[in-house]
Amino acid sequence: MTAASLNSLVTRLSPPPIPAVQAWGKSYGGDHGPLIDLSQAVPGYPPHPDMLRWLGEAAASLDYMNYGPIEGETSLRGAYAAHVSELYGAEIAGGNIHITSGCNQAFISAAMAVAAAGDTVLMSDPYYFNHETTLSMLGIKTGFVACESGNGFVPAVEAVERALTSDVRALALVTPNNPTGAIYPPARLKAIFDLCRKNSIWLILDETYRDFLPEGSGAPHSLLGEKGWQDNLIQLYSFSKSFCIPGHRLGALTAGENVVDEVAKIMDNLQICAPRAAQGAVARALPALIEWRAGNRHEIDLRAKALREVMTDLGGWKLEAIGAYFAFVRHPFEGRSSTEVAEYLAKHAGVLSIPGEYFGAKHTRFLRFAFANADAETIQQVRGRMVDFSL
Amino acid sequence: MTAASLNSLVTRLSPPPIPAVQAWGKSYGGDHGPLIDLSQAVPGYPPHPDMLRWLGEAAASLDYMNYGPIEGETSLRGAYAAHVSELYGAEIAGGNIHITSGCNQAFISAAMAVAAAGDTVLMSDPYYFNHETTLSMLGIKTGFVACESGNGFVPAVEAVERALTSDVRALALVTPNNPTGAIYPPARLKAIFDLCRKNSIWLILDETYRDFLPEGSGAPHSLLGEKGWQDNLIQLYSFSKSFCIPGHRLGALTAGENVVDEVAKIMDNLQICAPRAAQGAVARALPALIEWRAGNRHEIDLRAKALREVMTDLGGWKLEAIGAYFAFVRHPFEGRSSTEVAEYLAKHAGVLSIPGEYFGAKHTRFLRFAFANADAETIQQVRGRMVDFSL
Ligand SMILES: Cc1ncc(COP(=O)(O)O)c(C=O)c1O
Ligand SMILES: Cc1ncc(COP(=O)(O)O)c(C=O)c1O
Repeated sequence: MTAASLNSLVTRLSPPPIPAVQAWGKSYGGDHGPLIDLSQAVPGYPPHPDMLRWLGEAAASLDYMNYGPIEGETSLRGAYAAHVSELYGAEIAGGNIHITSGCNQAFISAAMAVAAAGDTVLMSDPYYFNHETTLSMLGIKTGFVACESGNGFVPAVEAVERALTSDVRALALVTPNNPTGAIYPPARLKAIFDLCRKNSIWLILDETYRDFLPEGSGAPHSLLGEKGWQDNLIQLYSFSKSFCIPGHRLGALTAGENVVDEVAKIMDNLQICAPRAAQGAVARALPALIEWRAGNRHEIDLRAKALREVMTDLGGWKLEAIGAYFAFVRHPFEGRSSTEVAEYLAKHAGVLSIPGEYFGAKHTRFLRFAFANADAETIQQVRGRMVDFSL
Repeated sequence: MTAASLNSLVTRLSPPPIPAVQAWGKSYGGDHGPLIDLSQAVPGYPPHPDMLRWLGEAAASLDYMNYGPIEGETSLRGAYAAHVSELYGAEIAGGNIHITSGCNQAFISAAMAVAAAGDTVLMSDPYYFNHETTLSMLGIKTGFVACESGNGFVPAVEAVERALTSDVRALALVTPNNPTGAIYPPARLKAIFDLCRKNSIWLILDETYRDFLPEGSGAPHSLLGEKGWQDNLIQLYSFSKSFCIPGHRLGALTAGENVVDEVAKIMDNLQICAPRAAQGAVARALPALIEWRAGNRHEIDLRAKALREVMTDLGGWKLEAIGAYFAFVRHPFEGRSSTEVAEYLAKHAGVLSIPGEYFGAKHTRFLRFAFANADAETIQQVRGRMVDFSL
């Protein structure tokens, strides 16, 4: 009688990275003042008071108690379609939207809709760790498009081309990027999209951080206005960051109606429907909190500026990329892994960051700072802590 | 330039069954009075007023805005562990609990924890359709244990034994059963569990409806008290039915701590964590609403009795099994499929049910009635509608 066995695709995954990093923070003694948490990508300010009120009203209402439509509340699908249409100058209908329980779920739904175990999906390298682990646990093979620091970590069209093999079903990109903060220019996205079309593969575009593009940026890209975009594009979004409600778990997927139908089959199995009450609340917030969101974009911009200053002439540290929510910073410790450096920085300087190698083994000379998580004043204190830091 | 292709494991699934059935209801003209919906397994009464209030308070609170622990709120894991310990006379700790966004998600998490594409998982036949579609879309092969009407649709140990092949990783059972309502006796569950242990496979036990066992039933089974149960048992539960909150999406998985760790890796990719506010509310409700839940159990019992009466001497209709939430009823129309019968019954008699064949092709002589969804008085009206019904 031996214990039943577990799926080796899952057992061989590392434990989830965020709790591991948070544990380092807990063993910081407080010598330099309170812990400065630049690890998880969360907004370091609360939701709008109206948002809280709407969440409370909806959650206590009988209207959202029962199972709801798999694809999402009609109100939210409509409000989000209107928002996307306006932002991209495109014609997106409620039928093009599938609401999910966060953007990680939008990603796994998209991945499963286009690929099965044994197929290949390409990602940028560095990658968002949950994209990699999601594909691995499904037995989907991963291929990588190297993004060079010299190119600001923006993928080159030729690099995508080189990675294309016959078993590739999709290319998954994140812009603005996690972990690097790189903002992919519209022209580059168009060129990559054209390459995907030529090769009949999907472009899965995770735009979790698009509301934090620099002010006055205009549309993040033109792809949703391309004729026939539905044949090759699946766009992902998260309500977690823009509305400061990660605990309520809401995201969205924008795609052709036939893809939405396939995602509905997947979602029915994954969890029937996303939590309903928060959907009702966000449907109200989307048009109502436009100005508040613009104010946050400005605030996050200030935090980026503060981090730029902190990093100027800071020993051997080098800010190699910054944008939207993240900075990707080269550490000065030749021969030391990013995990060692991040762990020491957390435990001894009280600055929590994510090791670069969590986003791909190659990136062990980097740390990711999620600067949205702390205000400018707090970020300024990072300098003092790092000036004296050594290993 | 051709459209990128979709995953055939998904495209070949039928569209989700519940929306298809609900569409039939919408084309009922109302000739015999309002539609009687016995299709979806939802409680036809509202949550307790305190539950509504707690849901509202938690959703408006800053305490649950941020990302939470992947495994679930400590408060809910503790409260649920205490509840399970008491119900089964077993020692279950918070570390044995993983909170999920509903029981479908608990199932897919359990399935992925123990099986990869190409492995086999056994199910009862008839089966709960989402179990079958979940496994299929993951490329996990399915095997079936036939449950005979003559045995009250309870699986025989020998039938499980016959279905065991070397690539089987788990047996998934549902008790009380959906669709038949069959309640598996503790001794049978013990014998099946022993067989699983002997063969080093997992028993995945979905107990979504256990709070609706007949009054005075005692513990549903003894398995959580078995030494080493953690090596072979994963138990699933839903808060949807017992607390009348399906729209809030909460379920739970009980397993060994090592399984909980693997499920956390999966959940991190599926959706990071279950929605938090509802977890806080249910942690309060679990101990507080014991009496209310007992009252509902009684109410559902009355509904079962009403349906038994309705079905007595009703033309060629035959109630072959009933329990907890469901009745599995043989229709009199030789040569007509359950889908035809259910569609006609919905459109022309205004009684919504689910075709037996949705739970396995063999069961085309059956309809499933989810009697929990209507009060006894409404159920009594079913008789009049069915007496005159013909195809
Ligand atoms: C690129 C990216 N995608 C998806 C997510 C997950 O977002 P959600 O909270 O909507 O699941 C994150 C969160 O950090 C992210 O960085
Ligand atoms: C057997 C069974 N398992 C799981 C579920 C899904 O429950 P939840 O709402 O918790 O996802 C249902 C719902 O009908 C069910 O009948």
